[in-house]
Formats: sequence, structure tokens, C-alpha cells
Amino acid sequence: MDKNTAIEKGLELVQRAKVVMLASGGEDGYPNIRAMLKIHTDSLHLVWFSTNTSSEKIKHFLKDPRACVYFMDSQTFEGLTLTGDVEVCRDIETKKRFWVEGFEIYYPQGVNDSDYSILKFKSKNGKYYHGLNIISFDIKDVPLFE
Amino acid sequence: MDKNTAIEKGLELVQRAKVVMLASGGEDGYPNIRAMLKIHTDSLHLVWFSTNTSSEKIKHFLKDPRACVYFMDSQTFEGLTLTGDVEVCRDIETKKRFWVEGFEIYYPQGVNDSDYSILKFKSKNGKYYHGLNIISFDIKDVPLFE
Repeated sequence: MDKNTAIEKGLELVQRAKVVMLASGGEDGYPNIRAMLKIHTDSLHLVWFSTNTSSEKIKHFLKDPRACVYFMDSQTFEGLTLTGDVEVCRDIETKKRFWVEGFEIYYPQGVNDSDYSILKFKSKNGKYYHGLNIISFDIKDVPLFE
Repeated sequence: MDKNTAIEKGLELVQRAKVVMLASGGEDGYPNIRAMLKIHTDSLHLVWFSTNTSSEKIKHFLKDPRACVYFMDSQTFEGLTLTGDVEVCRDIETKKRFWVEGFEIYYPQGVNDSDYSILKFKSKNGKYYHGLNIISFDIKDVPLFE
């Protein structure tokens, strides 16, 4: 499989994924994985998440922005690993942009809830897995628009 | 939910999981996630994986043993994060112990294949997720035998 096909397959995988794994550097430098809902992606360049400002992962990313996101389809044995950096966004424009109806369950005060934050993950590198194949690529080789 | 119930639910989740996420510290300190087949677990204390000696993750763990494993059931919204250290095992006893029929596809030379290695993950801490609940525990509070 060539790099362009891997990138195309990776984009398709991201489109159909509902759940994403997110790893932070964690405390004491131990990596830490948790499942997150995918709220929005821009090509493979940016992955957006919402989270509680009080959550442990916010503390992790403010201390060390290095992160990894992983998309998987266990039916087709495909996986996509992206490594990059997370920025914690608390400005009202970003919070409004990604507000989803029903978020009131998590953030009762709505878009202005101080416990509502957005994580902006910016990719640097990607690795597409299919069965025993692994194809690595630089995010610069991925088109910005799908 | 109390800690003992969380541990019990975590053990059940591990029992039915076929795929496990494994994070290493990665290159340049960036965390790195990949999906692995679960070959064997001892309670929540030890998680065993097989891998190619030539794989990137072996390089990562020889440099930095800190790791995280994550079990998920997307049907029930349960997750279990374990943090701990990985030891790379290349002794013949361990390799024999975890050899599975069919591994010849990955390691054509059989149990003596120099590209066949075992990863022994030893837990320190756990976190059980169910919906919005998160229960943390020390691995010392988990019974050694199920």
C-alpha cells in the first residue's frame, strides 16, 4: 500500500469513527489513555474534543501538551495513530463553535460554564495500520481539505 | 459505585476484551497508542502481549518502560485504564508459555524465532470508567487471583 492510499484510508476511518482514544503524558510521565467522543475533525490535521476543565487530562496537557490520538475499526482491523500537541481552549468563540445540543448534561451552565473546555489536538505525524501493514506519514503530506 | 465493585467490573471487562490499547512513551516523549491482541492476563496485575522484536514499541519500552493499557466496551460505555511498566521478555520459558497455535504467521521460525518477543506489563494503578463515573484504585487493592 502506498502512502496516499494509507492517508485516504485513514481519512475514511476517521470519518466513520465515533470514539477516539486520547493519550496524555500523564502524571510522573506515565502515558494515560481514555476514550473520548469525536466531536469534530479537520482532515487529519486537527481533532477537537470537549472536556471538563476540572478533569485530570487538562492538568496533564497544561503541564505537557504532547499527545496521541488513535482511531480503530475492529471489524476491518484498521488503526490510525496520530501524534501531536494539545492546546486547551477556553475562549468563548471556540466553545460556541463546538457546542452540541445535549451538552447541558455535562455542563449545566451552557456554553459559558467554566467547567466546559475544548481540546484542540494538532497532528504532526501519522501511522496507518491495516493487518500487518504499517505506513508512516508526515502530516504535511495530508491534504488540508478532504 | 465503591472501589470493590469497580475492581470487580474491571476484571469482568478484561475477561471479555479481545483487543487492548497499549501506550508507550514513544519517541521524543510523545505518547504512542496501538491496538494489541490480548493473549493472557493475571487478574489486573499482569497483562501479556506478543510482538515482533524488531517493532518500534520494543525500542520504546527498552528506553522507557512506562506504559498504559486500556480496555473498553463501547456497548456498555465501560473503560479500564491501567498504568505500569513493561518488561521485554526474550527467555525461552516465557516465549514457550505464551506461544499460540497460528503464531507461525508472524514468527515463521516458531518459538525460537528471534523476532518473537513477549511484553510483560505490570500494573501499578487502575482507573475504572463507567459513563461519567471514574473510580481510581491502587493495584495492591486488587486480589491476585480472580
